[in-house]
Amino acid sequence: MKPNIETFLGCEAEYKNANIVLFGAPFDSTTSHRPGARFASRAMRADSLAIESYSPYQDKDLYDVSTFDSGDLTLPLGNPEPALAEIERFTGGIISDGKVPLMIGGEHLVSLGMARALIKRHPDLHVIHFDAHADLRNDYLGQKLSHATVMRRIWELTGNNRIHQFGIRSGDREEFMWAAEHVRMHKFGFNGLRETVAGLQGKPVYFTLDLDILDPSILPGTGTPEAGGVTFSQLLEAVLELKGLNIKGLDINELCPPNDLSGVSTLAACKILREIILLFNG
Amino acid sequence: MKPNIETFLGCEAEYKNANIVLFGAPFDSTTSHRPGARFASRAMRADSLAIESYSPYQDKDLYDVSTFDSGDLTLPLGNPEPALAEIERFTGGIISDGKVPLMIGGEHLVSLGMARALIKRHPDLHVIHFDAHADLRNDYLGQKLSHATVMRRIWELTGNNRIHQFGIRSGDREEFMWAAEHVRMHKFGFNGLRETVAGLQGKPVYFTLDLDILDPSILPGTGTPEAGGVTFSQLLEAVLELKGLNIKGLDINELCPPNDLSGVSTLAACKILREIILLFNG
Amino acid sequence: MKPNIETFLGCEAEYKNANIVLFGAPFDSTTSHRPGARFASRAMRADSLAIESYSPYQDKDLYDVSTFDSGDLTLPLGNPEPALAEIERFTGGIISDGKVPLMIGGEHLVSLGMARALIKRHPDLHVIHFDAHADLRNDYLGQKLSHATVMRRIWELTGNNRIHQFGIRSGDREEFMWAAEHVRMHKFGFNGLRETVAGLQGKPVYFTLDLDILDPSILPGTGTPEAGGVTFSQLLEAVLELKGLNIKGLDINELCPPNDLSGVSTLAACKILREIILLFNG
Amino acid sequence: MKPNIETFLGCEAEYKNANIVLFGAPFDSTTSHRPGARFASRAMRADSLAIESYSPYQDKDLYDVSTFDSGDLTLPLGNPEPALAEIERFTGGIISDGKVPLMIGGEHLVSLGMARALIKRHPDLHVIHFDAHADLRNDYLGQKLSHATVMRRIWELTGNNRIHQFGIRSGDREEFMWAAEHVRMHKFGFNGLRETVAGLQGKPVYFTLDLDILDPSILPGTGTPEAGGVTFSQLLEAVLELKGLNIKGLDINELCPPNDLSGVSTLAACKILREIILLFNG
Amino acid sequence: MKPNIETFLGCEAEYKNANIVLFGAPFDSTTSHRPGARFASRAMRADSLAIESYSPYQDKDLYDVSTFDSGDLTLPLGNPEPALAEIERFTGGIISDGKVPLMIGGEHLVSLGMARALIKRHPDLHVIHFDAHADLRNDYLGQKLSHATVMRRIWELTGNNRIHQFGIRSGDREEFMWAAEHVRMHKFGFNGLRETVAGLQGKPVYFTLDLDILDPSILPGTGTPEAGGVTFSQLLEAVLELKGLNIKGLDINELCPPNDLSGVSTLAACKILREIILLFNG
Amino acid sequence: MKPNIETFLGCEAEYKNANIVLFGAPFDSTTSHRPGARFASRAMRADSLAIESYSPYQDKDLYDVSTFDSGDLTLPLGNPEPALAEIERFTGGIISDGKVPLMIGGEHLVSLGMARALIKRHPDLHVIHFDAHADLRNDYLGQKLSHATVMRRIWELTGNNRIHQFGIRSGDREEFMWAAEHVRMHKFGFNGLRETVAGLQGKPVYFTLDLDILDPSILPGTGTPEAGGVTFSQLLEAVLELKGLNIKGLDINELCPPNDLSGVSTLAACKILREIILLFNG
Repeated sequence: MKPNIETFLGCEAEYKNANIVLFGAPFDSTTSHRPGARFASRAMRADSLAIESYSPYQDKDLYDVSTFDSGDLTLPLGNPEPALAEIERFTGGIISDGKVPLMIGGEHLVSLGMARALIKRHPDLHVIHFDAHADLRNDYLGQKLSHATVMRRIWELTGNNRIHQFGIRSGDREEFMWAAEHVRMHKFGFNGLRETVAGLQGKPVYFTLDLDILDPSILPGTGTPEAGGVTFSQLLEAVLELKGLNIKGLDINELCPPNDLSGVSTLAACKILREIILLFNG
Repeated sequence: MKPNIETFLGCEAEYKNANIVLFGAPFDSTTSHRPGARFASRAMRADSLAIESYSPYQDKDLYDVSTFDSGDLTLPLGNPEPALAEIERFTGGIISDGKVPLMIGGEHLVSLGMARALIKRHPDLHVIHFDAHADLRNDYLGQKLSHATVMRRIWELTGNNRIHQFGIRSGDREEFMWAAEHVRMHKFGFNGLRETVAGLQGKPVYFTLDLDILDPSILPGTGTPEAGGVTFSQLLEAVLELKGLNIKGLDINELCPPNDLSGVSTLAACKILREIILLFNG
Repeated sequence: MKPNIETFLGCEAEYKNANIVLFGAPFDSTTSHRPGARFASRAMRADSLAIESYSPYQDKDLYDVSTFDSGDLTLPLGNPEPALAEIERFTGGIISDGKVPLMIGGEHLVSLGMARALIKRHPDLHVIHFDAHADLRNDYLGQKLSHATVMRRIWELTGNNRIHQFGIRSGDREEFMWAAEHVRMHKFGFNGLRETVAGLQGKPVYFTLDLDILDPSILPGTGTPEAGGVTFSQLLEAVLELKGLNIKGLDINELCPPNDLSGVSTLAACKILREIILLFNG
Repeated sequence: MKPNIETFLGCEAEYKNANIVLFGAPFDSTTSHRPGARFASRAMRADSLAIESYSPYQDKDLYDVSTFDSGDLTLPLGNPEPALAEIERFTGGIISDGKVPLMIGGEHLVSLGMARALIKRHPDLHVIHFDAHADLRNDYLGQKLSHATVMRRIWELTGNNRIHQFGIRSGDREEFMWAAEHVRMHKFGFNGLRETVAGLQGKPVYFTLDLDILDPSILPGTGTPEAGGVTFSQLLEAVLELKGLNIKGLDINELCPPNDLSGVSTLAACKILREIILLFNG
Repeated sequence: MKPNIETFLGCEAEYKNANIVLFGAPFDSTTSHRPGARFASRAMRADSLAIESYSPYQDKDLYDVSTFDSGDLTLPLGNPEPALAEIERFTGGIISDGKVPLMIGGEHLVSLGMARALIKRHPDLHVIHFDAHADLRNDYLGQKLSHATVMRRIWELTGNNRIHQFGIRSGDREEFMWAAEHVRMHKFGFNGLRETVAGLQGKPVYFTLDLDILDPSILPGTGTPEAGGVTFSQLLEAVLELKGLNIKGLDINELCPPNDLSGVSTLAACKILREIILLFNG
Repeated sequence: MKPNIETFLGCEAEYKNANIVLFGAPFDSTTSHRPGARFASRAMRADSLAIESYSPYQDKDLYDVSTFDSGDLTLPLGNPEPALAEIERFTGGIISDGKVPLMIGGEHLVSLGMARALIKRHPDLHVIHFDAHADLRNDYLGQKLSHATVMRRIWELTGNNRIHQFGIRSGDREEFMWAAEHVRMHKFGFNGLRETVAGLQGKPVYFTLDLDILDPSILPGTGTPEAGGVTFSQLLEAVLELKGLNIKGLDINELCPPNDLSGVSTLAACKILREIILLFNG
């Protein structure tokens, strides 16, 4: 008899056959408002049973593609460095095996771990970043490692104009000024996404999706909800625009299930994740 | 002194004078994700006091029309068949008295009880079905009676092309394929509604409204919320498009009050119900 | 060492230097559905730390302008008259000092206190009123002082056609009929706002914002949520249209934090308040 | 067909046959911490279906005795005086008909309305008062009518040493000092209850039960929970000690259902109410 | 790389080495008040990480004993019979392999499935039943299969005086009268437990623990909370009294996680389950 | 006009006159189960208005004694070391001024900051530790700084037998074995407290109160609730037993307000804090 195996809906391939390797990174120690993103991956696995494996948007089914769910990493809470090192190590292994890592955060800082692993193998990496917040501070209360600095840290790895931000509607004045010099920031929505995707054809891309780009009416379950975001349909359409990119890494982060007792935030995240898997897996 | 009478707002007519007879069907035993639709009718009666009886959309008032609220049926939980039989029996009596039954679910399966009663008297019945889910499975984990199979069971009563579905954005691949052969499915929204209404003039119609057609931002309080739905204004406009149909039966289902502690889901349901009563009652 | 000072984000000016004086009016005794607006000002101060002081919409920062936060008034609950008298007294002092009072309710009835103080000094006062509800009843269950009568009471002070209502989507028939004779009511949204603002140039204006004008998906945390409201972006755009008005008093009311455990309602209120302060403070 | 009648479990007698007349007094406008007691009577009727009508403690059943549930009074919120007048009027009618009124609050202030009606007919009335709080302030923020002053107001009607308090564990120093001169206060628990009951044999008694006498672990759903209270079994035992008293009026107040989402507070209140009805009804 | 395996804390033995086989039975379709027990086993696995594997009460550790967690059965909701058949089939297999089945409900009705399997192999089975409710009705709203009838159905299998009930504080009069003739009912607490255990030495025993025996202050997260229950320490002590019995089957049921957002109910259940495993596993 | 000052109830002395200096340490980054203790100090200040300043247990009033509330420290989240350094620095200043620091956590790790400051000035410091958990691990997932290791870190400062633990009911086997050699652990309750207090007369003492010593029924709002704890009355009595000790530092930690929506946990914490202040302040 087999022990209890729990995966995200339809992600039941064996590792060796999988194109995408899903895993959770339950770390949220630097979250500054409402913590709880650590519970995202478990909640998404459990609630994924309440959506369908079939997408009427793409006419594809999770059972048609090969995704492996390796569960959650064991990450110490508190000091972020050991957690980031473990994410980098684990992600590196997946990349080395020629597969695409797909991480469920956790707070957005976890993306730095994956970025480190990706940049080693793809020095010319581009990052597509959907988010409400710029995340471009140099430090936050003196700390270099924070959910509010993560894209600045990643920029230190990629260099100028490799980060393509969409949906940004919050930050301090310095972040917006700094962004104008160093990254490609598209404010408030997805203007310019089509051109960006066209320009990135063939280049290695990391797609990092901070779910708080969604309006808080759709995703109240996040650590720092920011009013005035995009609708679910707008996000879905934008994700589907990414079709054809040469994706090397993926993540979806900042779902904070305890902040939405109705569970609709988790279900929205599950549905977007289904579409992402279907889009980039065959 | 009279005992405590509690009705939905403004539904205080005597039975003999009423055109519409409202009742609750508190059954949710087959709900597969979050149960609690059993509490919908009680919650709607209580919270209906927080909306107005007057509609500025239709310039009509619930106190201008005659609706009777007979309270909730006593339905055993568990095995659905006795509950469906009781709904059929009760609905049949209302129809025989020349009145329109208006049922508050409960899960969507309760519609099968009313459909059985209606089809007996109106063999040429058409069904207008607003929903996020196709509900067209042949069985669900081996069970024929389920919220996920209810429209398939009703199709067995009506035959082909009598069910007109709108807003469908979830199902398995088989449901979508089967639908193409047997029902009129309009995906994602209300495209084609005007033509459908035009084509049904004079024919007997059952309107069944699964509230999860609404986006979960508007109605988180439902059993299986599905991201990417219609707005309240879109639903309201679609309901008002039904004006003039020869309605023989009505229901509104899948409100799950415990899944939305703010109560805004219940209030949205109350407001839609007010508009439905005003539309079809004089 | 200084004792613990807590202000709304960035409202740290001294009184003498401030253009706007912020204060809370924690009164909600006449709320008819879900009480709790008394907790709004405290919740907004606490959660304001989770938004940025900088607005990318106006390219301004709360730290660039001078706002003083004097905390909450001490208001007895129950009988509204003493609370209104205290609000009138306190507001009057601010106006006498040549500053603009900005009140965080509490229920909407608190606006009557500020209106009394304003009308004494500005007999030709106009009122711009954003709300889901007309609030024009003459009495509510026999009571003249109620959240449902507040605009009628204010009309008694201003006379005809000085109250400009936007977004109204709920009331009884009498309110809508009465409104046609006595106030400028714009139903459902912001049609006519631009013309109204143009016509009020130079005149003294009181802007009272009942947050339930927002759709309950965006602001479930309010006492009487009314489905079918405006989006956050629509409200933001409407607020920014008010630029250049000769504002003499401001309030934002009917946030009910306990009715939204996710806190997104409070955050939406904080963000709108930030924009209002930035708009009218230099 | 009869309209929807909803009563507390088993309280289905006709008025003329009833010994006890149950009614709700949904008023909570002076509640100083968490409002919501207005919802108590509705919640108790709805949830009473989840307990049994039979008591294994008394070997009696609600269906064996005759209780009439007349529903909730319509009470304006805000100024307490009209609400108190209505309670007095309604209670007076019940007493005149030789029946025992049993009121479900609302906040504790509602007891003043019943006390006024009782004292008119029974000038030698004694009051047995179970509570965590002394409620003996002369005024609260200048207001004479408040949940925090209710027993002081009742003392003005009864005179010295007619109020017998049990369980008191909270108040200001003045209340405790004043109590020593004017009422019979038993602190923290039920010491002296047996002697009190013995001394009141044959005299007319009003029993007012503020549910916050219970430890907040058992009844978190109350407006001002006070740690360190009695257990459910201790309260039940104390209530049963009242057997044989010449009860003229009864109330149970300060249940605040929204403050306990689990509903266990409401169920505890229902169970105590069942025992009270069984104890004093035949 | 291994897929994601999730077990209850420390239950990581292989099946062949295990003495106890843990599994979940997520069925709650007949729950009459608040449904949600279907989520108990998943919640317990997830939250078990927040307790220790070591018991200072027994000085034993879950990692010292051999328990296998086979996950949850796939049970259709609605009609109970297929679910019961599946539980019986699965339990039967475990018993045939000489192991002790330990089921996490689900509502209490699931125990009937295990009782059927046990009685086939142990016709002289005794049942120790801890519960707030008698569960001895012959039917509930006409249904024979219900959480309110489960012990009556089990009695039909065991015959008279084989069911030993403890803690019972709720039922209708008929249940209490019937119990006196057919089962050994110990009301309110654990009086007589020691003697019962002594008398059952060597006999095959099924221990079924309905968690609502606990006071709702300790376990609000259950479907029909009943005030006046035992404390956690009393329950723990009673469980430890069972030491040495010849246990053939075990279950723990009626945890309803959605009814306790704090999660303390789930943690209390986890801790009792830890003690049960340690007590009967080596 | 003065800006908005918010203090814990009655803690309104000036710094120079205060005997006790209250402050918040909103850090919870290593919490392993449910985070949110960062919100404790703010919640306690706000809700302290719902308790009385007068204690009928001690017949003393917070307004009779001199306590200063300096608000919350600004602590970066994530890496604990900077937060601990700031706590040590701030606490050191208070001690140097001859006052007693009273810290509201945050998670229990914050106590290490205060312990460092105290031990510098009082090398012979004893620690009285009330807690459900031993907190004696040497590391937790490789991290030395964790809520689960805090007492081990403090032991490194004090040496053997200077830590007196009460109420411990959870830990791994190694912690219990290690404790027997190095600290004075009293399991489950307060046995031995009187003797401990007697033995510490005149010696410098740090009292650290982890609120999860309380049963989760009383304090569900904590990060790792552990069933089977002490009642509020037992804790209160134990605290009062500490009278007369030479207290040099105090803290109260692990209140997690978001985990108890009813707020009764916060109120219980406020009441215990009131008693602690009254006990050690004059």
